[in-house]
Amino acid sequence: MSVTRHYDREFVRTFFTSPTAVDGEEDSAKMLRSAGQLRGLQAPDVWVPDNEDATAPNMRAEGVENIIDVVANQGAEFPGEIHPRVVWHRESPATRYKGFQQMLEITDPENGAVEHIDGFVIPEVGDIDDWKKADEFFTIIEHEHGLEEGSLSMSVIVESGEAELAMGDLREEMGKPSNNLERMFLLVDGEVDYTKDMRAMTPTGELPPWPELRHNTSRGASAAGLIAVDGPYDDIRDVEGYRERMKDNRAKGMTGIWSLTPGQVVEANTAPLPPKTGSWLLEAGGQEVELEAQDGKQVYDGDDLSLEEVSDGGYVLQAGGDRLELDEDELTEELLDRTAYIPSMTDIVDSMEEFEAAKEAGKGAIAMTQAATLVINGVEVDISKDRMWDEATYQAAQTPITLFQDVYEHRPDQHEELAEMYGADIVERATAVGN
Amino acid sequence: MSVTRHYDREFVRTFFTSPTAVDGEEDSAKMLRSAGQLRGLQAPDVWVPDNEDATAPNMRAEGVENIIDVVANQGAEFPGEIHPRVVWHRESPATRYKGFQQMLEITDPENGAVEHIDGFVIPEVGDIDDWKKADEFFTIIEHEHGLEEGSLSMSVIVESGEAELAMGDLREEMGKPSNNLERMFLLVDGEVDYTKDMRAMTPTGELPPWPELRHNTSRGASAAGLIAVDGPYDDIRDVEGYRERMKDNRAKGMTGIWSLTPGQVVEANTAPLPPKTGSWLLEAGGQEVELEAQDGKQVYDGDDLSLEEVSDGGYVLQAGGDRLELDEDELTEELLDRTAYIPSMTDIVDSMEEFEAAKEAGKGAIAMTQAATLVINGVEVDISKDRMWDEATYQAAQTPITLFQDVYEHRPDQHEELAEMYGADIVERATAVGN
Amino acid sequence: MSVTRHYDREFVRTFFTSPTAVDGEEDSAKMLRSAGQLRGLQAPDVWVPDNEDATAPNMRAEGVENIIDVVANQGAEFPGEIHPRVVWHRESPATRYKGFQQMLEITDPENGAVEHIDGFVIPEVGDIDDWKKADEFFTIIEHEHGLEEGSLSMSVIVESGEAELAMGDLREEMGKPSNNLERMFLLVDGEVDYTKDMRAMTPTGELPPWPELRHNTSRGASAAGLIAVDGPYDDIRDVEGYRERMKDNRAKGMTGIWSLTPGQVVEANTAPLPPKTGSWLLEAGGQEVELEAQDGKQVYDGDDLSLEEVSDGGYVLQAGGDRLELDEDELTEELLDRTAYIPSMTDIVDSMEEFEAAKEAGKGAIAMTQAATLVINGVEVDISKDRMWDEATYQAAQTPITLFQDVYEHRPDQHEELAEMYGADIVERATAVGN
Repeated sequence: MSVTRHYDREFVRTFFTSPTAVDGEEDSAKMLRSAGQLRGLQAPDVWVPDNEDATAPNMRAEGVENIIDVVANQGAEFPGEIHPRVVWHRESPATRYKGFQQMLEITDPENGAVEHIDGFVIPEVGDIDDWKKADEFFTIIEHEHGLEEGSLSMSVIVESGEAELAMGDLREEMGKPSNNLERMFLLVDGEVDYTKDMRAMTPTGELPPWPELRHNTSRGASAAGLIAVDGPYDDIRDVEGYRERMKDNRAKGMTGIWSLTPGQVVEANTAPLPPKTGSWLLEAGGQEVELEAQDGKQVYDGDDLSLEEVSDGGYVLQAGGDRLELDEDELTEELLDRTAYIPSMTDIVDSMEEFEAAKEAGKGAIAMTQAATLVINGVEVDISKDRMWDEATYQAAQTPITLFQDVYEHRPDQHEELAEMYGADIVERATAVGN
Repeated sequence: MSVTRHYDREFVRTFFTSPTAVDGEEDSAKMLRSAGQLRGLQAPDVWVPDNEDATAPNMRAEGVENIIDVVANQGAEFPGEIHPRVVWHRESPATRYKGFQQMLEITDPENGAVEHIDGFVIPEVGDIDDWKKADEFFTIIEHEHGLEEGSLSMSVIVESGEAELAMGDLREEMGKPSNNLERMFLLVDGEVDYTKDMRAMTPTGELPPWPELRHNTSRGASAAGLIAVDGPYDDIRDVEGYRERMKDNRAKGMTGIWSLTPGQVVEANTAPLPPKTGSWLLEAGGQEVELEAQDGKQVYDGDDLSLEEVSDGGYVLQAGGDRLELDEDELTEELLDRTAYIPSMTDIVDSMEEFEAAKEAGKGAIAMTQAATLVINGVEVDISKDRMWDEATYQAAQTPITLFQDVYEHRPDQHEELAEMYGADIVERATAVGN
Repeated sequence: MSVTRHYDREFVRTFFTSPTAVDGEEDSAKMLRSAGQLRGLQAPDVWVPDNEDATAPNMRAEGVENIIDVVANQGAEFPGEIHPRVVWHRESPATRYKGFQQMLEITDPENGAVEHIDGFVIPEVGDIDDWKKADEFFTIIEHEHGLEEGSLSMSVIVESGEAELAMGDLREEMGKPSNNLERMFLLVDGEVDYTKDMRAMTPTGELPPWPELRHNTSRGASAAGLIAVDGPYDDIRDVEGYRERMKDNRAKGMTGIWSLTPGQVVEANTAPLPPKTGSWLLEAGGQEVELEAQDGKQVYDGDDLSLEEVSDGGYVLQAGGDRLELDEDELTEELLDRTAYIPSMTDIVDSMEEFEAAKEAGKGAIAMTQAATLVINGVEVDISKDRMWDEATYQAAQTPITLFQDVYEHRPDQHEELAEMYGADIVERATAVGN
């Protein structure tokens, strides 16, 4: 039981923008054509031919023609959804009217692209009444072109304070008879322009982290049955930073993120899926360090924690300034407190299947165990972590599996890579569990 | 002057749930009976016989009978309020109707429990219109059973994005003539299901911290004159973690927390009360370390800070990579910047009494001094911290005292333990000050 | 294109309060008179003769007379705006009526002060309907005294949960015909009373950081075309802490802050302006350390990072527990990842001018380079950071320049100090760029 989502796909991992027309190239649609050929993990869940910021203002008329050309020719084969971004601005009627004209042209059935167009992305929206203006243009276009009312979905870029507030009103506005806001699909943060709109400044010019904006976007999406997507991560060389940002986003319920390159698309398509192998974390020096698996043991080789067996069953654990003298039980206890386990896809599927069997047999809760041999300074310690699984744990664990199943259903072009990544057997079990 | 609170108790420290019927026991109400016998610091401010998630679906009919039986027999003696949780779901009319039937039965005057029932807890609420549906059932029940309208209070579990948004509407909805939302009492976060509803994921499966949700709950409670309560802390072995969470909550204005065991109840009943003895904090290695009191001196024995007297009145302080050469005044200044004092109950009462006397004498502000001898590497340094107390400081300091007085008024069963904890004299002064 | 701001000044850096009448002084208006003589960087953008918390209740009648006296005599020469704070409380009609009377008296044209009064600050507001009550009093006063409707601006202190929520409603309420809320100017956080209202507690009694409140204030200001100002920073000795708070605020889009002393005014007038000289940050020991410029090189002299050239073109970099063996390219790469550059006013103006020229020449993006020689343990490494500048980067970089230009336009009394700070040449270029 959850909010009804008005679209087929439940998750969007990747939102990939391409310039629609680049000046100075022999073929101004070159980037568009090559993006349209992406497949598998390199292909985004949502592809956005970007006729706004990624394309120079004087190239946007040509951009419209390029979108039509490329989508008409390549759209049928493209594995993700296609949502061009048009121009829009909450403060400019002229820009809004241009956006309407771009959409009207792109969706003209005579141009042959509309059957592959899933919707449009509207940037720079303002308060909810501004969203309604865009929605009204969608409705007019649908009638003008004989499309089903509500068939074109609408996504917005949240890049102003008033748009952030509007996300709190969306749920109750969506049901009103004088709009078709049920067409809403993605709420996408646009932190560059949001930062400008909020007049925020950082010493180095890097973007503020805006945790509250991302929370509010995720909450707005949850309340209205939509999907939340984070904005672009500019430093495309910084893969580690991109991963950290996505991890932080997922803890907020924001699964999707903007991708600027096919490389970022691969990262962002992969990151929210459970890992192939599980791993152990150890708290050392105020941080959680991922241990290295060697011959089935979990090895810590940092300097922030040291362990010595000083007598038979007597240990000294040094952590920062603290020196703890511990017997074997105390040591195990201390290490249990300091460790956490990141379950693999197999672990999750195993646990879910086991819990389902237990429930079938009339049991409401079972204990799951994760055991490991830790190695600190060459000293080996066996630990074993129990976790109770009840209905709530089961359902919470289901989110990554539901995501995986959604991906599997909607992205057949990724089946091969997923089978390579996990093995065909676990992929099959993962698609079956929980249904 | 503050928002009018529509109930007697101003604070709720503890929200303790018990399964209403456990299968396989000779007496399925065993846990309910034993919870109903808790007294003193082990007894919660609000006790929640939980006929929802803590009780298996097929046991909930029996759970209703057990609630009636136990509350009718033990309710008169129970020292806290009693608010059973019934089933509810924003997406399921059938579940809502079941919740209504459970409440109707529990409150039937012929069953003898209703006079000890203070209200009900409604889980899984949605937007404000969903809250009104529950409220309407309360009103119908009150009329049906000849109870005073509004006499049953309503608390909700916030475990969806739309419920989080609803807390922002509550204040203005509460006054409307077509509802009785003035019956609202607690806003309780339910992070397990909230995480599921937001589709959030963390690598290890632990719950995200959701700071914005907790802020919004606390703010919603403040704006509507209600009480904010945080959700369950699952790792019941981790007392330190539970305390840290409560400290973080109190800095957000959220004084109450869910308790899963009598042990957690004791912790959560005690944590928001001022400590028996004051203590000093010293900033070392990027953290605030609590100093150890030895013979009236405050001793630091960590490795992150070292102090040496290199000449008469000349000192070297080493902190991390920094080496500071300081004379005595500079050293005192540096240590003042690095220290903070956590006042005891006695300190707070002393300061308030002193300020009240000064105000009586026509003075608007007074300086309060805290002095200590610090010992770092055996080197002793005397410091003395002044703080101006004006009306605003006085009123801010009053929050823990108001809480203490509220506890003292409503929980006579805790008087003995409080006197043991603080001494009878300071308890008496603390109950008198500020009135 | 942005939300229309209904006032001349676009930024307010400083909000400086003075008691209006101090008991026991020969001249109770002494502090007011001396504050009214502040000029240049010591003078705030907004000066607030404070007839509420800073002034004892029994002195407030005299405070009104003092405001009139001092503003009538000194107001014409004062370089900032003047917004007295009067009494108000969302829960007390008597206090509200007193606030009305104070404003009515201060603005009486016969008293000679009103032509220098820019508006009033209303503390302790509640929900939006409470803001409307204050607005209505402004309107009545304007009619009573023959002032233009809407000419007095209104600022509020946000110090309750309901006022925080009201900031979300402001944008849509401002346009309604039955109020004049277009007069709104500043949204000022008041964390002392907010903490009390939220009933929040910290062990040492220091104020919680309230990041969500500050975000919501900044967002509310952005959405309604107003200016966000943070509350008082009590520890006036702690300059470093005050600067950190302002840096954190600017990253939230909150440029203004309360100042309690002329010293704090200087800090807060200066902090949001770009620095005179650029500087380099190096990530070491989990922190960003500002490097020291020596003979044009950037020197790191901490302990958390060490570098050694072990062979020709072979390096060992030690960071915490990690030991990295790197060749020259890898070293450069690693150090690029660990460094960031804080641009100076000159850097920003240079880059903007360069981008403007490029745009003029038809180019949409250019690469800007920052080069430096780092010195770690005496080992020198040259690095060079490229950053692409496109229209969005350009516009984002503009915020500090727009601020500077706004200051320059409205504060001629600061021209001399600004020229001293930056040099006349760069000041002139900074006032011209981007227009």
